[in-house]
Amino acid sequence: MPNQTKPNVVYIIVDNWGWGDISVQGGTIPTPNIDKIANEGLRLTNFNVESQCTPTRSALLTGRLPIRSGTHRVTYGQPYGLAPWEYTLSKLLSDAGYATALFGKWHLGEIEGRLPTDQGFDKWFGIKNTSDEAGYSSTPQFDPEIVPEPFIWEGKKGEPSHKVKPFNLETRKTLDRDIVERTEAYITEQAKAGRPFFAYIGLTQIHPPIGYHPDFENITKTGPYGDILTELDYNIGRIADAIETAGITSDTIFVVSGDNGAVIERGFGGSNGPWRGGFTGYEAGLRTVGLIRWPGRIEAGRVSDEIFATLDWMPTIANLAGEGHRIPTDRPIDGKDQSKFILGTQPESNRDHVMCFVGDDLFSVKWRSFKIHLKTAETLWSPLETHMFPPVYDIRNDPGEQINLMERALFSYSWVYTPLNQILGEFGTSVQQYPNIKPGEDFTGYG
Amino acid sequence: MPNQTKPNVVYIIVDNWGWGDISVQGGTIPTPNIDKIANEGLRLTNFNVESQCTPTRSALLTGRLPIRSGTHRVTYGQPYGLAPWEYTLSKLLSDAGYATALFGKWHLGEIEGRLPTDQGFDKWFGIKNTSDEAGYSSTPQFDPEIVPEPFIWEGKKGEPSHKVKPFNLETRKTLDRDIVERTEAYITEQAKAGRPFFAYIGLTQIHPPIGYHPDFENITKTGPYGDILTELDYNIGRIADAIETAGITSDTIFVVSGDNGAVIERGFGGSNGPWRGGFTGYEAGLRTVGLIRWPGRIEAGRVSDEIFATLDWMPTIANLAGEGHRIPTDRPIDGKDQSKFILGTQPESNRDHVMCFVGDDLFSVKWRSFKIHLKTAETLWSPLETHMFPPVYDIRNDPGEQINLMERALFSYSWVYTPLNQILGEFGTSVQQYPNIKPGEDFTGYG
Repeated sequence: MPNQTKPNVVYIIVDNWGWGDISVQGGTIPTPNIDKIANEGLRLTNFNVESQCTPTRSALLTGRLPIRSGTHRVTYGQPYGLAPWEYTLSKLLSDAGYATALFGKWHLGEIEGRLPTDQGFDKWFGIKNTSDEAGYSSTPQFDPEIVPEPFIWEGKKGEPSHKVKPFNLETRKTLDRDIVERTEAYITEQAKAGRPFFAYIGLTQIHPPIGYHPDFENITKTGPYGDILTELDYNIGRIADAIETAGITSDTIFVVSGDNGAVIERGFGGSNGPWRGGFTGYEAGLRTVGLIRWPGRIEAGRVSDEIFATLDWMPTIANLAGEGHRIPTDRPIDGKDQSKFILGTQPESNRDHVMCFVGDDLFSVKWRSFKIHLKTAETLWSPLETHMFPPVYDIRNDPGEQINLMERALFSYSWVYTPLNQILGEFGTSVQQYPNIKPGEDFTGYG
Repeated sequence: MPNQTKPNVVYIIVDNWGWGDISVQGGTIPTPNIDKIANEGLRLTNFNVESQCTPTRSALLTGRLPIRSGTHRVTYGQPYGLAPWEYTLSKLLSDAGYATALFGKWHLGEIEGRLPTDQGFDKWFGIKNTSDEAGYSSTPQFDPEIVPEPFIWEGKKGEPSHKVKPFNLETRKTLDRDIVERTEAYITEQAKAGRPFFAYIGLTQIHPPIGYHPDFENITKTGPYGDILTELDYNIGRIADAIETAGITSDTIFVVSGDNGAVIERGFGGSNGPWRGGFTGYEAGLRTVGLIRWPGRIEAGRVSDEIFATLDWMPTIANLAGEGHRIPTDRPIDGKDQSKFILGTQPESNRDHVMCFVGDDLFSVKWRSFKIHLKTAETLWSPLETHMFPPVYDIRNDPGEQINLMERALFSYSWVYTPLNQILGEFGTSVQQYPNIKPGEDFTGYG
């Protein structure tokens, strides 16, 4: 293997993955390959995402709160996506000499100028938007004159992307297999080339509609969700094997995470572990699987409940790669450099809070062990409620967010509003200085 | 006793006092001292406050809707309080030659420049903010590096205030006794001096956390709330006795009122009488105890259900003291001069409506016997609901606000929206002319 000075980065992002969907976190379906990766590195049990696909992917790549970038909600048929001037982790690593590729789900823009190859990836294969689209053509009233027929795409930097095949309930079944096979080939090829690479793999499972490789049909006898989890574990195992086979395990920062919690309604079957809610400001909406492995650099078997956010990956990975100097200084970066915490030279996280936006609204703030809810909705389907005296829960002692301390202790916890107000105030000041851009806005930067 | 031409003013404001917490209004715990004061003067059964501590205290002293003054909500850790240019009843009486003192709870600012001695009081003793603070240090996660340890303070005009002792669950027990003893000494001393005085006594009961003088522990065998009410009645009786002993009863306007309704959740025990809700736009949030006594000038034993507001005290007391000419004319004063109504030379109140703000939102308007709800929340802990067709209740016939006339009579009551819209329109015009200031804003007046 050629000698290379920079670590490779392989990032797998799993769609709608519940905290409790892996057996090392209490899941009932065995996930041996995922558990093995967890046990070989650091398992972040307080890993916080944004509440939906698009904002989490935006936070991951930009290190910026998605509400700043106009990518804070999933949109349908409206202009959206990362503005060309956003500076992503993929651009940063590309500028640092990395080969870069995206396999799988993008969901950060669907028009030319807002595709992966416009954001630092040398090439890509996958879907522009959401897996919802796989179900479109099976709805009897679907009209491709209103909404274009969905496709699986691929593209290279400097060329327009092109259609590979229609994206429907049939092609949905083998899409993740296609993604994994392309990833394997890429890893093998890059390891041979000896140039550091960044592979971003957006698996489309465990997102509705249900549809998975025929090899796994009825394999668990527990229903589709168990079968899909088993396929997911197999797919992640194949990527881990590809890294191993290529002989680059100790040269590769390998991250496996979810993008938001699981869909648990309508018998879909996911598990958010002990956490309440889903897709909202309750804990199930922001805490999901977060694993990072880098043999020899990150202690194997370490588990930490320190607060870590998707936002932190961009500055953290940049710093782990020795490229922290490339992080932009002309715009707010909300992510924290967690490289010392990840490497274990510092036991604590550099983050004491996360703000949980759902669409345009700030739902909750987690500060230390507390969760403070300005607005609530039980799940995706529930009505929005606004609170005059925001409920306060102590997640450490009350993981299910059942005991509102403000009510239980009759105001003795109102001091928690002080750090809350400081967090809100600092964010407000920052937004005044750097106004948020709107979804799809043709905004040319703060310059 | 030296001859003095101006009446003294003793104002006791009780924290979180429910309309039904005095036995003359149906309370089950005997309150003989309070009942006696009620029977010696005028009992206002339709006495309306703001929905929280800070705004009520602001309305009382300024005569202005707190939303105008940036004092419309309880804040935690943010700059807040009465702007220095606000003209308070204490400034007015001080300018008229009164001695002035505040004993007890302030809750209208916590920094130098926004303390009682900055708002016309010669001296003060008590707490800057809320009794919540007594509970802070007993919450296991409390961190004095985030929120300063709470203290009991005292100060004199022209000097910085200084700490007396920590404010915690232990000192909370004797705080009201300390307040009463200082009030007694002040009344005695001022009566001897023969100079008119204004004593503002902010008792800290019946606000959570629970904690009261050991003399009253288990005195009623009904639980802490009954014991606290008994201590409260005793304390108010001691202040009444001090006035009597000093020989100034007929020279003293003596007001006893609540600041907002009772906390009735979590078995805390208060009674809001027949009124619905608490701390919101329902009647329990705005109607509480209101008593005024001035022997020889106000008829003993009079009871009135005319609408009266905390806002009215500033202009009313100024006029009762013959100092109405000092009321500012350069800013909106929302309080009405109710001196004729109080003295009985006019049977009706000068007020036909009150607007009930909760935090930044206008929740309801009471007009004549109607209550119109633009936004609702059952209590402090309930989610906020907005109404497109505001529910209308007739409190006189439906004190529990159970029958929405708009729904019951299918729009036959929509004429009530006409006076509602007139009230909103007049307020809107006034706000356009005199913009509201924001909490903590360094605003130098409208001039």
